[in-house]
Amino acid sequence: VLKHVVLFRFKAGTSPETLRRIEAAFCQLPQQIEQIRAFEWGTDVSVENKSQGFTHCFVLTFQAEQDRDAYLPHPAHEAFRAVMRPHLDQALVIDYFAHPVNGK
Amino acid sequence: VLKHVVLFRFKAGTSPETLRRIEAAFCQLPQQIEQIRAFEWGTDVSVENKSQGFTHCFVLTFQAEQDRDAYLPHPAHEAFRAVMRPHLDQALVIDYFAHPVNGK
Repeated sequence: VLKHVVLFRFKAGTSPETLRRIEAAFCQLPQQIEQIRAFEWGTDVSVENKSQGFTHCFVLTFQAEQDRDAYLPHPAHEAFRAVMRPHLDQALVIDYFAHPVNGK
Repeated sequence: VLKHVVLFRFKAGTSPETLRRIEAAFCQLPQQIEQIRAFEWGTDVSVENKSQGFTHCFVLTFQAEQDRDAYLPHPAHEAFRAVMRPHLDQALVIDYFAHPVNGK
């Protein structure tokens, strides 16, 4: 499967209420976009001081690259971007085909 | 569960052979460190040009923060760091407690 990892760093001063609204909006997408096979997210609790200001991680699972390609320009995704973009400092996106490691 | 997401950006000119050696060394850790409950990884195939030069993503799963805290200073982890560090440009780490989204 193809994992789509999205990290967000928000502008300084973004209110908790705005963050909750953005999180909720992103979490609506699995109901709106059939190509999303799995979706999970959380906020940073790392202790190594290597998060570079990124506070939110969302991981979407697609069955194939074509599904990711359908997701990216999907109207529901665009609507979410419009909610988030005014508050975003930086997004980092990396996609990978998941290689599990045997034995675990 | 606690997800530990590690992104690597390697120095320009790092050879494919060196990258394969580093990947293999990281993939040994689940056999060496009992606290790692799951481990998967892959290399970037994103199409949005937002990967900021990070090419490798490794996702480790821990049952709790205490297991992550045992992993970080583990001698096998330190030995891996020694293999990787000479070639590393930057590492980005974010940990999150995974919230699955219902319906998917």
